[in-house]
Amino acid sequence: MSLIVQKFGGSSVANAERVFNVANIITSKYKEGNDVVVVVSAQGDTTDDFIEKANEINPEPSKREMDVLLSAGEQISMSLLAMAIEKLGFPVVSLTGWQAGFRTSSVYGNARIKRIHCDRIRKELDKKNIVIVAGFQGLNRFDDITTLGRGGSDTSAVAIASAMHADLCQIYTDVEGVFTADPRKVKDARKLSEISYDEMLELATLGAQVLNNRSVEMAKKYNIELEVLSSLTKKPGTIVKEAAKMEKMLISGVAKDNNVARISIIGVPDRPGLAFKIFSKLAAKDVNVDIILQSIGRDGTKDISFTVIKDRAKDAVQMLKEYADVLGAADVVYDENVAKVSIVGAGMETHPGIAADMFEALYDAQINIQMIATSEIKISVLIDAKDADSAVSAIHNKFFSVVNE
Amino acid sequence: MSLIVQKFGGSSVANAERVFNVANIITSKYKEGNDVVVVVSAQGDTTDDFIEKANEINPEPSKREMDVLLSAGEQISMSLLAMAIEKLGFPVVSLTGWQAGFRTSSVYGNARIKRIHCDRIRKELDKKNIVIVAGFQGLNRFDDITTLGRGGSDTSAVAIASAMHADLCQIYTDVEGVFTADPRKVKDARKLSEISYDEMLELATLGAQVLNNRSVEMAKKYNIELEVLSSLTKKPGTIVKEAAKMEKMLISGVAKDNNVARISIIGVPDRPGLAFKIFSKLAAKDVNVDIILQSIGRDGTKDISFTVIKDRAKDAVQMLKEYADVLGAADVVYDENVAKVSIVGAGMETHPGIAADMFEALYDAQINIQMIATSEIKISVLIDAKDADSAVSAIHNKFFSVVNE
Repeated sequence: MSLIVQKFGGSSVANAERVFNVANIITSKYKEGNDVVVVVSAQGDTTDDFIEKANEINPEPSKREMDVLLSAGEQISMSLLAMAIEKLGFPVVSLTGWQAGFRTSSVYGNARIKRIHCDRIRKELDKKNIVIVAGFQGLNRFDDITTLGRGGSDTSAVAIASAMHADLCQIYTDVEGVFTADPRKVKDARKLSEISYDEMLELATLGAQVLNNRSVEMAKKYNIELEVLSSLTKKPGTIVKEAAKMEKMLISGVAKDNNVARISIIGVPDRPGLAFKIFSKLAAKDVNVDIILQSIGRDGTKDISFTVIKDRAKDAVQMLKEYADVLGAADVVYDENVAKVSIVGAGMETHPGIAADMFEALYDAQINIQMIATSEIKISVLIDAKDADSAVSAIHNKFFSVVNE
Repeated sequence: MSLIVQKFGGSSVANAERVFNVANIITSKYKEGNDVVVVVSAQGDTTDDFIEKANEINPEPSKREMDVLLSAGEQISMSLLAMAIEKLGFPVVSLTGWQAGFRTSSVYGNARIKRIHCDRIRKELDKKNIVIVAGFQGLNRFDDITTLGRGGSDTSAVAIASAMHADLCQIYTDVEGVFTADPRKVKDARKLSEISYDEMLELATLGAQVLNNRSVEMAKKYNIELEVLSSLTKKPGTIVKEAAKMEKMLISGVAKDNNVARISIIGVPDRPGLAFKIFSKLAAKDVNVDIILQSIGRDGTKDISFTVIKDRAKDAVQMLKEYADVLGAADVVYDENVAKVSIVGAGMETHPGIAADMFEALYDAQINIQMIATSEIKISVLIDAKDADSAVSAIHNKFFSVVNE
């Protein structure tokens, strides 16, 4: 007998039929003799409907009241799911975030789980109940309801699995697992049977939005084995764990991120400390910088380019323009028509030449590389946005056709 | 500075416009320097929508899960109302039943308030916040959410007013107050400026559904002054209190109840103990009996007639028919086409002749009386259902045209 935590997203419980589909998945695990704790998100569009309702009344409501409103969404979905399980004839109880013992930081709208008091969940499991828990929500030290921010239900599930030392944490979603590339774009994309936490983290930050990042970090920290799988097909998904076997593949995936813009500061005097000034200024404005490229000095000046999330680009540019005089920079320019394409794989650490293969694939496809950044298990390139999809295909073919031979 | 508790029903907050209307009523009391605690019901049809959603999944859900679902309704309305008050620029906080300290019995779907821990509400009032509280809900000793049953928000409001020794408890609804008769039916119906608890209780049980009965009982017990008024007009409503001044009126209202059926057991042997057997049998089946009439014995048999709520009539009749042999009764018959018309007034205790006046009014209108029941402050008659409206008008004219002269 194992303790299994299962998480179902909003699309998995969007209507009565899907609620019963989920109820069947849950009860089949329960029938095998397992203890089952289920984390559920709000149904389909509930959250968006609530936001619209709120906007109609107050476009700038306090985050506290917004959390009160939004948390009603899981209360609805969890009780309906419990009713479906009752209908199937199994013992079940649904618990809100505060009933399930979720204690969070006090930041409304984007709280972090601080601890989980599992007594209530344990008591219900001892009574042989299937336990449904509202994802995405908790209680802060003021006894106020908080939400964990979008995607927070993944984190709720991993947090329960950690706190209760679950044997497995299954994240049910609308994709069948983690793929070597976006299967809607790349026809040869393969589902991975296993992937390591670090690779999953790199893929998540790179735009393959299968799992919420915080949840993977937490799973890594507490060494919780995750399985990402679809609630609509009966196929096994992808296991995310510490020492994933690499299936003889050097890289585990190719990802694309369009939500990126490049900013360049032109003609900065070649003096020490200027880069520091620029990036601390940006950090103070909460602008996260990703790839950084500094040209080699010429005529006593240099150019500094970097990428930021698209919707922070204009703010950053304006701030830097006002600051250009102090810097002694000639100009600040930016480009939104860029995309970041990355390969991720623990194998590249021990296999030199991966980068060369990637660049060759891009060269063969006649795609120009603007910037390059590398880490131990990742290589990213910045290219023209229009080339992004063909770049992903070219790189995927390069690596995965080799493996398949 | 006073402490005022205000309660708004579902129709008062049915849409954004009405939410702002209510927000204005609340903030105008706050601006006068009062502490304001607001109890709010779920918006318009939310509760019915939830019941439908649940039915689609499970027509017989557990009451526990139904309470989890339904209580989300007030969580939505209270946060939206708080957002509207924020928009108007006033400090506000919304609290669920459990946050507001409502502790109830453990009966799901029909819980009773056992006590209210007012610390949180007090703390928020000390911070000069307007406090919005979810009506209709609380927490039982298992830390589970319970609901108080339909109309429970009135009780929530009176309970807070009692626990916090409020100076006034205003029940905002969609009528302007308590009338001497249904104003939609009787054109001369007058709004009462005051009415006593007992009269209000008799009127409520008699079908004038302005206030939930439990809430009036509680107000009487803790001597909380209630005001019933409309959220849509700015007129003063009706004050419900212990020693209401009678405005020179002998009776305070005429009410009609169509939800009634008459059952007759024919030809029962005239032996002691049979009435006891019949009514204890009915009580065991949870059938409440109202007016009882027993014919004078003749040929050693008698007829026993009584009224019950319409939807229990068939059950009662079936049960009595099966029991007819044991009773030695000749037959059991019933009639659903009846109505109960009643007058209520503390004045009738000290004024003999009120009953005669009522019967005269009915005689003048050529309305036949089937049964009569009286209490210290009430006289009820059972008549043909088709005569009910004209009976109410005739009786109302009799008493209120006299007063007006």
